[in-house]
Amino acid sequence: MTTGARRRMGVEERREQLIAVALDLFSHRSPEDVPIDEIAEAAGISRPLVYHYFPGKQQLYEAALRRAAEELTARFVEPHEGPLGARLLRVMERFFDFVDQHGPGFSALMRGGPAGSTRTGAMIDGVRQAAYEQIVAHLGIPDPAPRLELVVRSWVSLAETTALLWLDGRRVPRGELERQLVHDFAALAAVSAAYDERMAQVVRRILADEPDDGMFADLVGRLMALPQPV
Amino acid sequence: MTTGARRRMGVEERREQLIAVALDLFSHRSPEDVPIDEIAEAAGISRPLVYHYFPGKQQLYEAALRRAAEELTARFVEPHEGPLGARLLRVMERFFDFVDQHGPGFSALMRGGPAGSTRTGAMIDGVRQAAYEQIVAHLGIPDPAPRLELVVRSWVSLAETTALLWLDGRRVPRGELERQLVHDFAALAAVSAAYDERMAQVVRRILADEPDDGMFADLVGRLMALPQPV
Repeated sequence: MTTGARRRMGVEERREQLIAVALDLFSHRSPEDVPIDEIAEAAGISRPLVYHYFPGKQQLYEAALRRAAEELTARFVEPHEGPLGARLLRVMERFFDFVDQHGPGFSALMRGGPAGSTRTGAMIDGVRQAAYEQIVAHLGIPDPAPRLELVVRSWVSLAETTALLWLDGRRVPRGELERQLVHDFAALAAVSAAYDERMAQVVRRILADEPDDGMFADLVGRLMALPQPV
Repeated sequence: MTTGARRRMGVEERREQLIAVALDLFSHRSPEDVPIDEIAEAAGISRPLVYHYFPGKQQLYEAALRRAAEELTARFVEPHEGPLGARLLRVMERFFDFVDQHGPGFSALMRGGPAGSTRTGAMIDGVRQAAYEQIVAHLGIPDPAPRLELVVRSWVSLAETTALLWLDGRRVPRGELERQLVHDFAALAAVSAAYDERMAQVVRRILADEPDDGMFADLVGRLMALPQPV
């Protein structure tokens, strides 16, 4: 086993390098289209040596997707300061930065990874759960009622779908979609509020903290004036 | 090989029976929790005989999921008559009927089937595509612009997520969610219309066909009066 002219790396350092190389390749092509030889070559080591650090292709790919999931999750963290609309917009900007950088890898992660394994599925669910918990924390509601949980979780799913659809041709400016998604959150919350007084309280509380020229004020204000559905 | 005291069935008839039995069992438990023995027993035949009709468990399960996908797709078909809001509501009612009847099987289908196989993935994409095409046909727009495509596809995804979340405890009345989803469609379209004149034209055309007391009129009317986002 040789690393050629390069200096010797420790086991953890080499594993990190292979993960970084894999993620870089996955940002241009789907993981299933990237052969292990290419990862080995990009890392400057032999194919058999890759298997010294990861027992198989699946394990290396899962480690890379886990790293991507961690990076994505880190982008949801946002200080609890200022109007909610502005906070959500900053999170959406960082989310689309990630999607933009990791296109094919993001799609693979969200579609269940190369083999749609149970472990990859658990990773995706972990990312969704982290996004859900972040938003609930921003709303300042420790024990969300089922309707609020439904609004937040379905909005997380909407953001995910919108990003996946955007990647397919990038036919709409991403900045527009980032702002739209924040308005969509307000719209979904307001529609739900039309059916439920507890949701209406949540929406009114959000509104009270929004500036008059904020992202939510106008949209939600008009929706909240809607009569109860028949 | 014997079918006991029962009359002999033809090959296609027996395959249909096994699919029906499997779908019935999948309406109570996830496919991965239903052993092939149980399907054999419920069909009144021996386990080895099941393999006479399907080469393996995976093939039988895929045939059952394909049947479920076909049944679900059939429910999207709605006459092109009357206001769009009322049509969408009827489709949502039939959709939730299906989800209600096939709970664990629907979840398994939408989460990629027992093994998350490529074929199951293609089936799910087929269901989503059929839903998308039905809605576009109701809108009467032969060649949808990217923003409209995004609104319709993301709403299809929203309906799917909402149904999956509802199945987890059924903590919100389904009738409420059916109506909410129709309002959500209007809300997503209206938010998009605030960014794009072609979307605004689509929304105005929908509104023109809605009765004053219809599902869309009030909601969309208020949203359409929004100023353009900065």
